[in-house]
Amino acid sequence: MSGTIGNAAVNAIEAAARAKTDSRVLATLSIETRNGALVKIADALMSHSVEIAEANEKDLKAAQADGLPDPIVKRLAFDGKKIEDAVAGLRDMIGLADPVGRIMLRRELDADLLMEQVTCPIGVIGVIFESRPDALVQIAALCLKSGNAAILKGGSEAANTNRTLYEIIHGTGVEAGLPQGFLTLLESRSEINELLACHESVDLIIPRGSNEFVRYIMDYSEIPVMGHADGICHVYVDKAADIAKAVPIVRDSKTQYVAVCNAVETVLVHKDIAAALMPPLMEALTDKGVEVRGCERTFATHSGIKPAIEDDYKTEYLDYIVTVKVVDDIAEAIGHINAYGSHHTDAIITEDDVAAAIFMAGVDSAGVYHNCSTRFADGFRYGFGAEVGVSTGKLHARGPVGLDGLVTYKYLLHGNGNLVGDYAEGRKSFRFKDL
Amino acid sequence: MSGTIGNAAVNAIEAAARAKTDSRVLATLSIETRNGALVKIADALMSHSVEIAEANEKDLKAAQADGLPDPIVKRLAFDGKKIEDAVAGLRDMIGLADPVGRIMLRRELDADLLMEQVTCPIGVIGVIFESRPDALVQIAALCLKSGNAAILKGGSEAANTNRTLYEIIHGTGVEAGLPQGFLTLLESRSEINELLACHESVDLIIPRGSNEFVRYIMDYSEIPVMGHADGICHVYVDKAADIAKAVPIVRDSKTQYVAVCNAVETVLVHKDIAAALMPPLMEALTDKGVEVRGCERTFATHSGIKPAIEDDYKTEYLDYIVTVKVVDDIAEAIGHINAYGSHHTDAIITEDDVAAAIFMAGVDSAGVYHNCSTRFADGFRYGFGAEVGVSTGKLHARGPVGLDGLVTYKYLLHGNGNLVGDYAEGRKSFRFKDL
Repeated sequence: MSGTIGNAAVNAIEAAARAKTDSRVLATLSIETRNGALVKIADALMSHSVEIAEANEKDLKAAQADGLPDPIVKRLAFDGKKIEDAVAGLRDMIGLADPVGRIMLRRELDADLLMEQVTCPIGVIGVIFESRPDALVQIAALCLKSGNAAILKGGSEAANTNRTLYEIIHGTGVEAGLPQGFLTLLESRSEINELLACHESVDLIIPRGSNEFVRYIMDYSEIPVMGHADGICHVYVDKAADIAKAVPIVRDSKTQYVAVCNAVETVLVHKDIAAALMPPLMEALTDKGVEVRGCERTFATHSGIKPAIEDDYKTEYLDYIVTVKVVDDIAEAIGHINAYGSHHTDAIITEDDVAAAIFMAGVDSAGVYHNCSTRFADGFRYGFGAEVGVSTGKLHARGPVGLDGLVTYKYLLHGNGNLVGDYAEGRKSFRFKDL
Repeated sequence: MSGTIGNAAVNAIEAAARAKTDSRVLATLSIETRNGALVKIADALMSHSVEIAEANEKDLKAAQADGLPDPIVKRLAFDGKKIEDAVAGLRDMIGLADPVGRIMLRRELDADLLMEQVTCPIGVIGVIFESRPDALVQIAALCLKSGNAAILKGGSEAANTNRTLYEIIHGTGVEAGLPQGFLTLLESRSEINELLACHESVDLIIPRGSNEFVRYIMDYSEIPVMGHADGICHVYVDKAADIAKAVPIVRDSKTQYVAVCNAVETVLVHKDIAAALMPPLMEALTDKGVEVRGCERTFATHSGIKPAIEDDYKTEYLDYIVTVKVVDDIAEAIGHINAYGSHHTDAIITEDDVAAAIFMAGVDSAGVYHNCSTRFADGFRYGFGAEVGVSTGKLHARGPVGLDGLVTYKYLLHGNGNLVGDYAEGRKSFRFKDL
């Protein structure tokens, strides 16, 4: 039941209250202070890289002893080059524009009444993430840069690495003038439920992990949750597709990294191109060890594959499996995606710009792509420096969430004794003028 | 259990499914089509103003027969000048910029890979609102202009007026080329729960009404809810306040219209100005029939008022009652507002610009004002044309919500066969360039 603020053990509820109080301090810090702390944190991580690698070695040994699967052990590794990459990412973030204090609207309501809509931090953000330790560095940096207090709960497999990273980042941050509560690490699973109950002090929860875990958080918490459960992405190969682009895009979307939310799960194929597309497509996929499940019409052009059932269209495989379905036209493709997809990322492959425009307007997803791989849906690849998560919700932030998704705004009015009665009773009238 | 799409009676679940399907059509309509429909709707409302006034007369008679309080009956009235005002507001909205299709970010990820972040409608929005019939006209127009399908449930007191308005707006809209499901009217209270269960087809619920009602909706629905329950607004009179501004601002904030969320409920007074401020302030408030409840230190400067208890600081009176509390300094004022307020709208009265800046950065509310009345927190007064509600949440939209709060965005990628493998394996690298 203990979290960590520096060396003082606290429970999640006390930690959240502390973060709330300190978030008000963070909200008023200058970008020079926030960036200055990030520079010192980057330096400290580099100068403690041996210590970090040693802590990581303990986690790796424990993971192997526990018989964790190889892909998880591989993601857990954090030393040498990986530490350098994480610090390079952090240094890139220092160069990004300040997301706080940006004036989105500046409007005179009347000659002596000025309105400004200004971005400001959200407050306290709880992030629950999986085993990759570089996630801790990225999330801590994104929250600090955007002036938010962060409460982090990492995967237990990475406990030693996370604690070491946390101690370096927290200690350096406080030395650089940040309040104690700018960053909190929770270390036990029971604290997740405690954190979810802190709706008076935590403004936003970002869960990253399995579908079941994210759904549990979404169902359980009164705190707003941003993220995604499923990532059921589609590639639609239009009748006017260039097959030489379509095949590598489908292969990249499926196999470049299968265990991620932006990998394709269903390929939709226009009936007029099915006969020409299927042979090279199937060869490219089976070459990479992908199991293909096909609709009835897929069999007409390519036999010997497993039949797809209704459930396949609703499944995020996260594995070397893909469903192929033949459709009559672009309208059927759009309808299928909106009905079965998870509003994450969907692509059309076509040389017909009119078809591309219809698809991009009609598909109701956070990312809609033309002639490129669904795997581009990522904060780094969008130039956000990093991402705190990917949102399939439509409110607030959508898609990969970087700094801009970590701020809200407030309306400031600068007046000189202005009364509403004067306007309501006709003595004055509004003269709106955007500056 | 029956809602109305045109003349066909349906239940809320069928209506929501229809709205969802038709929302995909609405999302692809040009601004010319949407504005064209608004022009015809404005014309139709004017040419049917006698019919509207007759329907309203029925509602008014029923309300009087039922013994509804005068303020409610007054708000229910909708004829002549009020219809003209509503139509004028609608015509103003036609002139506002299209909130849909706005490019927020245009970035080359690489020479042949272009990313655009483009605004798009949210989808299906359910709005549950109180008795004022002009709200129906405003909300229908805001949703149509922003390309969203709207499902409306108005107050039963205005049933005849709402049905007449709905039939005119819906019939005219469909004639102008909008899909049937662009606007749905629910007419029975039981349909609210049906609507709240439609989380697969309704993207957002906006409840407007009493605290209890809004809290019920927020607790009950899985659909994201935008709005506010409490409106506990503050005016802080700083030691450097100009009393000649402070007194009229407090009076306007409290009495210009008491039954609204942006009226002040607690006045915080710096101890150094209390002795000078209290006599004219109390006179101004009691003149208007306001009951003042004071903290212990308020008694030191002004006796004979009712003592305030802890609960007073947490109460939205919506009545001619105000609490006055003396504070030691601006930090105590900010702390009180963040702890007891509802993050709606709070003002500082001061001639000290440094104090104003500290207050505006430190108060965590949707509106933070300097030297003007809290009653300015309103979509019309902000120049939004109208508002669909006021949000005290920090995610998505904050404060009065106009057209910009009714859109989300999507990321479009325009490629030429681009694969993530090329970047992951070092054959290509990103060259971010904002256009």
